[in-house]
Amino acid sequence: MLNRVRSAVAHLVSSGGGPPPRPKSPDLPTATSAPPAAPPEAPRSPPARAGSARAAPRKIAEARASFSRPTFLQLSPGGLRRADDHAGRAVQSPPDTGRRLPWSTGYAEVINAGKSRHNEDQACCEVVYVEGRRSVSGAPREPSRGQPCWPLQKEVTHESLVVGAIENAFQLMDEQMARERRGHQVEGGCCALVVVYLLGKVYVANAGDSRAIIVRNGEIIPMSQEFTPETERQRLQLLGFLKPELLGGEFTHLEFPRRVQPKELGQRMLYRDQNMTGWAYKKIELEDLRFPLVCGEGKKARVMATIGVTRGLGDHNLRVCSSTLPIKPFLSCFPEVRVYDLTQYEHCPDDVLVLGTDGLWDVTSDCEVAATVDKVLSAYEPNDPSRYTALAQALVLGARGTPRDRGWRLPNNKLGSGDDISVFVIPLGGPGSYS
Amino acid sequence: MLNRVRSAVAHLVSSGGGPPPRPKSPDLPTATSAPPAAPPEAPRSPPARAGSARAAPRKIAEARASFSRPTFLQLSPGGLRRADDHAGRAVQSPPDTGRRLPWSTGYAEVINAGKSRHNEDQACCEVVYVEGRRSVSGAPREPSRGQPCWPLQKEVTHESLVVGAIENAFQLMDEQMARERRGHQVEGGCCALVVVYLLGKVYVANAGDSRAIIVRNGEIIPMSQEFTPETERQRLQLLGFLKPELLGGEFTHLEFPRRVQPKELGQRMLYRDQNMTGWAYKKIELEDLRFPLVCGEGKKARVMATIGVTRGLGDHNLRVCSSTLPIKPFLSCFPEVRVYDLTQYEHCPDDVLVLGTDGLWDVTSDCEVAATVDKVLSAYEPNDPSRYTALAQALVLGARGTPRDRGWRLPNNKLGSGDDISVFVIPLGGPGSYS
Repeated sequence: MLNRVRSAVAHLVSSGGGPPPRPKSPDLPTATSAPPAAPPEAPRSPPARAGSARAAPRKIAEARASFSRPTFLQLSPGGLRRADDHAGRAVQSPPDTGRRLPWSTGYAEVINAGKSRHNEDQACCEVVYVEGRRSVSGAPREPSRGQPCWPLQKEVTHESLVVGAIENAFQLMDEQMARERRGHQVEGGCCALVVVYLLGKVYVANAGDSRAIIVRNGEIIPMSQEFTPETERQRLQLLGFLKPELLGGEFTHLEFPRRVQPKELGQRMLYRDQNMTGWAYKKIELEDLRFPLVCGEGKKARVMATIGVTRGLGDHNLRVCSSTLPIKPFLSCFPEVRVYDLTQYEHCPDDVLVLGTDGLWDVTSDCEVAATVDKVLSAYEPNDPSRYTALAQALVLGARGTPRDRGWRLPNNKLGSGDDISVFVIPLGGPGSYS
Repeated sequence: MLNRVRSAVAHLVSSGGGPPPRPKSPDLPTATSAPPAAPPEAPRSPPARAGSARAAPRKIAEARASFSRPTFLQLSPGGLRRADDHAGRAVQSPPDTGRRLPWSTGYAEVINAGKSRHNEDQACCEVVYVEGRRSVSGAPREPSRGQPCWPLQKEVTHESLVVGAIENAFQLMDEQMARERRGHQVEGGCCALVVVYLLGKVYVANAGDSRAIIVRNGEIIPMSQEFTPETERQRLQLLGFLKPELLGGEFTHLEFPRRVQPKELGQRMLYRDQNMTGWAYKKIELEDLRFPLVCGEGKKARVMATIGVTRGLGDHNLRVCSSTLPIKPFLSCFPEVRVYDLTQYEHCPDDVLVLGTDGLWDVTSDCEVAATVDKVLSAYEPNDPSRYTALAQALVLGARGTPRDRGWRLPNNKLGSGDDISVFVIPLGGPGSYS
């Protein structure tokens, strides 16, 4: 996935005849003390990515898409075995002795409590240098505000080109996964959360249930959106309404506050369709007795009684339980991309972008993360580059808990996350920063 | 339209066996000094509505849907003739001597400069009393926050029921217009902007190019959204993508920054599809040479080279120019409904909700309206009930301009609006207010 984004963005900024992008030490980025290249000739983009697979590739596919840990963890064969220990669940971070991640980015991960053999989160982090020509041709020049480049030509900003390149990368990745299942029988799919830094702006692209937030001066700025059957109800219902064949006569695209009973035929009941945000009444007809396309609430909300996440890559073979109906058309591979302009605010060393997989967010609120950011960072000197890794570790540990009473438990005795947990902490104004 | 909304909302609050809703002095509302009824047994809802027709009903239909002016203007036959005078364009307001509109709401309108025989804006305003039973059954009771009424029952708030009733009213109105064209040959369609006040909340529903803003302590709060081919690009493209038969092989659902030339076949060009907010590159294929579904910018943006507004009622017979392709599937009758809770803020007599048709907004910005609000209201005593009509008149006059140099011109010598202009000014904390 990261390769896709890297090549899409690199292709974008180098288009016009410059040499092809040179990934520099793939998956083992250079120290961020490397002199920042002057935009736009040689922008660099250190993208970080956290994602969690929804279903394990079957054994048959392992040769092609085997599980591994991020190279930057520099795990020895012995370390790899310890990292895979479901009983110990040791927190993994890059070693203090090696090269740091760009900007002294912090990272930590932990394996699940036994729900799957491997850690199905897969992180990576990379710096790309592109040596382009002096002016970026191919991509239209940034026009002055409100003034199109040519007559009858729509204004296309650099920002919208980067967003489009990332969107395109997600789509191409999904198509690649569709192609690769032929002959490989790769099952399953995954979510993806990608961060690209380019020319002073941070782009956060999310498809799935990972989450990114900025904690800035104690304030929480959401940098991604949840994609659930509830938040995407109208998109899903519209698809079912316009393409009723996707519902196969088994589901209704209408939503009701509860399951309709056959004895209620002819009675009035509240409903919502794809155009409505409120509820209105309708007379119950035979079709309304079908199972609802979207049902359940909160964590239990499902599309076609099958999936609880509505964006992600892969899953091309996924079917409705005990049915041949495909899920994929409702599961979209397109991310939402949010842009954060780093130059619009004077950041201090305690301002961070936190990326976490669902393992973190299942048991940790945004506010709890912000509190941990404050607590951990204030215990370190502002120029101590290890503080962000310490923070990532604290977040992972806080979500995992400790083994007690036949389970992993948090200090309040509630269950911790038994899922894989991965966390990046990217400092926005810290040591070794971009500026 | 207002009848539809009135009956939908009245039906909602009276459902459960109470007597049917009694419109009180239809189109000539009672003075707002009438004692406010206690919710929810007898809520009252003074809805105001401003909308502008896009095409005049043909003569054959006039018997059924003839143009008229709001009853509350109390126009004599002579006054009606003067109001229809395209040369004079006299500003019309309710007479000082008659009953005031609810809450001392201000109103003013003016006919167009000759583009159509009639004033195609149609305003109305009404107070409805509903005598329901002591508790509203049928509609579920408002549950305590986060706690469903029944197990497995989704929480349905009173607010979402009112929103749903209004959405439903728009849809039913549109269906009624579809039915009525048979046998009547009614052509054309219209936008609609509806305000409903109920139980402490103001509901603003908009489908089209009218606009509502609240000016509160000088601050502008948008209460409606523009629906144009540009703001609705992704909805329109998705419809064209999922139902390609609607494009009839004449249009492409993809967007390009400019028209693609046949000689560019095989070359790379930027594009956006229904899933993208950014731009990416694709190789031009034969299909991409078709005319784009959405094209043009700003005021000149069009769907299928035909309409510039993408929400509204009617227009069921509208076809693409020199083609048989119907426009209607792309033109949605569903409004966006915004809710404003009047109880969350202590309003002063200068806080107002301003509704205007496109004739106002074509030449007046939100900021200019806010400046006029400040200027006019500060010239009147806070308890002078005529100040809101004076404000509505000032807004209409400011958009119309004065006849000079062969046209209606604004003080800056730019052209004023030659369109019909209608403005409601609803005070949120003024004399005769709801509280």
